[in-house]
Amino acid sequence: MTLTLITLDWVPDFPRGFVRDLRVRWALEEIGRPYHVETVPMQPKSDTHRAMQPFGQVPIIRDADLTLFESGAILLHLGEGTALLPEARRAEITQWLFAALNTVELTSVVWVSKVLAERWPEFFGPPSGEESKAFARQALKTRLSEVETVLEGRDWIAGAFSLADIAMVDTLRVLAGEGMLGDMPILSAYVARAEARPAFVRAMADHMAHWQRADATMARTA
Amino acid sequence: MTLTLITLDWVPDFPRGFVRDLRVRWALEEIGRPYHVETVPMQPKSDTHRAMQPFGQVPIIRDADLTLFESGAILLHLGEGTALLPEARRAEITQWLFAALNTVELTSVVWVSKVLAERWPEFFGPPSGEESKAFARQALKTRLSEVETVLEGRDWIAGAFSLADIAMVDTLRVLAGEGMLGDMPILSAYVARAEARPAFVRAMADHMAHWQRADATMARTA
Repeated sequence: MTLTLITLDWVPDFPRGFVRDLRVRWALEEIGRPYHVETVPMQPKSDTHRAMQPFGQVPIIRDADLTLFESGAILLHLGEGTALLPEARRAEITQWLFAALNTVELTSVVWVSKVLAERWPEFFGPPSGEESKAFARQALKTRLSEVETVLEGRDWIAGAFSLADIAMVDTLRVLAGEGMLGDMPILSAYVARAEARPAFVRAMADHMAHWQRADATMARTA
Repeated sequence: MTLTLITLDWVPDFPRGFVRDLRVRWALEEIGRPYHVETVPMQPKSDTHRAMQPFGQVPIIRDADLTLFESGAILLHLGEGTALLPEARRAEITQWLFAALNTVELTSVVWVSKVLAERWPEFFGPPSGEESKAFARQALKTRLSEVETVLEGRDWIAGAFSLADIAMVDTLRVLAGEGMLGDMPILSAYVARAEARPAFVRAMADHMAHWQRADATMARTA
């Protein structure tokens, strides 16, 4: 049965390439599973949206009679019985999935929220000050160097490419975009290697095309 | 086979009650599985510790020939085949586990890091300023009110008590301790209900006794 991916109907330029439906598109491309896309309004959030996702976030999937949110949970669901989550490496892959979405992203968000506040205070609040930002940056650098140590001499975080790499790379991509990986060749190469995968390239193209179609629709109806 | 829980040898007063080995102790008490405790030095991190856990964090478990870190992954591993993760509710429980450790905790950590910076700048960096803290507080309040909506009329987040409640309650406990749940009766009652469970009470008692024994050992060897 064709799976349904639910994402936003439109977003402004800045989160394009980073809306988390990308993770799900990427996983679906890796396992060769067809899907179609439905949308919910970005603003205001609809009751239909809140009924499926109480935080008003995306992605959400509908797979037969299951409706599921949280990209981490969706990755585990989609990975079941595929090369993204082989039974023999389940515990290890799950460990690195949480390392990406909790340990690494928790450290990342503290710094990123300060960087984004300088650019878009209306969304991310008033700036925190240089000293506070520098401290958060150093904490993040330390954490990233720990990931780099793990990746020394391996292509992927948990043996062969797995859903843990989708989560880890997508967490790192935001940082790469902010210039944080400039002096971290192992992490930079890891992100580049992942982004060169045909499944990532297709997922990103479809992700960007979705927003471009939304722009066109808005222009027509304006 | 008896499971081994690896935690720190000692911590100062402030994170006691919140070191994440508590989540694992709690789950083990819920499923009635015996375990024993080993320790790694809090400072400096040992090579043995880094070899098991590249971020130098705890908890870590050893279960037969599996060594595993990340409390989320450990909860999923321990839950397998138990009432904490019934097969029929696997996807829903996993969804709420990630909601706790990513969606809720990511919002929480931005505010908490600002609050702790005022108290312990040597660990959490220079303060961010009142405006920035107020913005983070409001974002967190919004997110918590969304969790509160979900919990209206239910005792537990995903049907019967599950490992998702262990992660969600443990994420909320930090906020309760900082007075953030004062005007959120549904969340406060949820945390109180969870903390009244005999398994939580035993886990917390063992967690605190562990640090008290560590104090006594330090006093003897001082």
